[in-house]
Amino acid sequence: MTATWLEAPCPDPSARHEAEARARQAVLTKPAGSLGALETLAIRLASLQVTGRPRAANAAIILFAGDHGVAAQGISAYPSSVTVEMLRNFASGGAAIAVLARELGVPLTVVDAGTLAEEPVPGTVVDKPRRGTRDFTAEPAMTEAERDAALAAGRRAVEAAGAPDLLIFGEMGIGNTTSAAAMASALLGKPPADIAGAGTGLDDAGIAHKVRVIESALALHGLTDPGVDPRRVLACVGGLEIAALTGAIIAAAQAGRPVLIDGFIVTVAALAASRLNPTCSPWLLYSHRSAERGHAVVLEALGARPLLALDLRLGEGSGAATALAVLRLACALHNGMATFGEAAVSGRTGG
Amino acid sequence: MTATWLEAPCPDPSARHEAEARARQAVLTKPAGSLGALETLAIRLASLQVTGRPRAANAAIILFAGDHGVAAQGISAYPSSVTVEMLRNFASGGAAIAVLARELGVPLTVVDAGTLAEEPVPGTVVDKPRRGTRDFTAEPAMTEAERDAALAAGRRAVEAAGAPDLLIFGEMGIGNTTSAAAMASALLGKPPADIAGAGTGLDDAGIAHKVRVIESALALHGLTDPGVDPRRVLACVGGLEIAALTGAIIAAAQAGRPVLIDGFIVTVAALAASRLNPTCSPWLLYSHRSAERGHAVVLEALGARPLLALDLRLGEGSGAATALAVLRLACALHNGMATFGEAAVSGRTGG
Repeated sequence: MTATWLEAPCPDPSARHEAEARARQAVLTKPAGSLGALETLAIRLASLQVTGRPRAANAAIILFAGDHGVAAQGISAYPSSVTVEMLRNFASGGAAIAVLARELGVPLTVVDAGTLAEEPVPGTVVDKPRRGTRDFTAEPAMTEAERDAALAAGRRAVEAAGAPDLLIFGEMGIGNTTSAAAMASALLGKPPADIAGAGTGLDDAGIAHKVRVIESALALHGLTDPGVDPRRVLACVGGLEIAALTGAIIAAAQAGRPVLIDGFIVTVAALAASRLNPTCSPWLLYSHRSAERGHAVVLEALGARPLLALDLRLGEGSGAATALAVLRLACALHNGMATFGEAAVSGRTGG
Repeated sequence: MTATWLEAPCPDPSARHEAEARARQAVLTKPAGSLGALETLAIRLASLQVTGRPRAANAAIILFAGDHGVAAQGISAYPSSVTVEMLRNFASGGAAIAVLARELGVPLTVVDAGTLAEEPVPGTVVDKPRRGTRDFTAEPAMTEAERDAALAAGRRAVEAAGAPDLLIFGEMGIGNTTSAAAMASALLGKPPADIAGAGTGLDDAGIAHKVRVIESALALHGLTDPGVDPRRVLACVGGLEIAALTGAIIAAAQAGRPVLIDGFIVTVAALAASRLNPTCSPWLLYSHRSAERGHAVVLEALGARPLLALDLRLGEGSGAATALAVLRLACALHNGMATFGEAAVSGRTGG
């Protein structure tokens, strides 16, 4: 039993606006194709926004935080208490994503989708079915009802964000690279050793332990068969913030809002979202390839070619926020450059 | 005979401010190193700007334009008339770099360092020893005096820019990927076939022709020996705007201004500048790897690891301007994030 809203189709991008944007790029005063990814981004955004003038001025960042019972297994370099401490740091403006949001002039909403916090942290939205997941080395991380509530929390956050030009989702949660790696292993049918990485800073022995923890959990929950149900994967080894991200991605795409996908955790949520509702895929723009080991694997499985590769491995939406600055320049170029005709510049001599 | 100002030493970056910036990055509320290139950029800029608070708000873009006699050999997909037409497009705001400068709030100065224009183009600075270079398949592109005047034009443009936080240099000139490829071949002792690329859009036959043109020019001017004098290379097969770029890079570094290096042409000028005055090297930040074939070769020779790779191949400073947006975010993070102590966030548990 999963809420049926997840399967409602997302709109198709506009082929007409894509063709028009492509035609415009071909007559702007530059050799055709010479703006590379900045051209393709602008064209893509035009087709998603059904416009001749793609926009990224009014973005919104929503960060989902959650705690992970599996942290009890010593799979992170930091204690679980950091998740709630960081909630306060997001709200008070000292965290990386808060600085980026301020610099970019973009509103940041922080949703406690399942941290261990007992009291609401001022300046955050609390929408959680429980405080932290269960330790998935012993039992499912969450019940089906809790998973569905977390998915719906993502949808509610998107609805509350109004109608921005595009959405960025971030995450925070000590232990969440372990949950995300377990999900990716199950969804892709790949060994955890190919995916699990250093997270916030494990050494080689720490990564080896993390791999064993994931392997035993996948065996315990019977998640080693290809074609596994993504709903089961989310409930058994996911995270509340990862379920919220998954729901948010699907809801954004259903509402016709492009999503600038961040790093490893958000990309795993995008993978889950694409499995739950394949029509959301065209709405996802991949911002960067992080330094976290499994990210490249998941990106490849999604056929994604991300814009940036800056060796980031922070999460929070920081890579997507950085890419937003580039996306804005792509829009400015598309909308603001003169055509050969307007500028009276000669075209090619031939060839 | 070359003006002796070129050899005056550039200041050393501040090791103390580099160490302090590195120490600050280590206590900001994130896993150490998790902001990847954004950390190293901020640290680098702090050491160059001799400050605890690196800045990229007040940048300046200077674009140098020039024409190339070798264009008579049919080595470009566009006619030479496009250079002056584009000068007007820069001045009137329709060209890519003009749009980027506007969007970024950065002043753009356009210097005619040697185009074929007979009259000054309104809105541009004219500082040129001659109109276009000579066809270097028959004779040196410029005299030593003309080369020195173009180098000095670069220095004058830097002096006129005041004291920005950093400088971006751009270029425009039909035929200038041929001149730059010839220079790179001579300076690196590599065959032109390893370096010459499509430029504004040559097909394979066009590139093969371009390679032959460069090969015969290098033979004509005796530029095939390793250890060739960069001054001779500039005069024999360079461009007036490339000489101006070279002088501008050296002058900026001498004045203690970081330079955000653009694509293939500017990187070749950076190579020439580094050969003429090795003390300028620490002042050069490499913004992107372009799609132009030889760029990766020259970057590798310089030991450069550029920030972005967006398949750009326009020039004009467009890649550096795009990177400026990322550099500004790196500065904002460095200066604006809270430390673990300030935010009362726990550190690592160990490992």
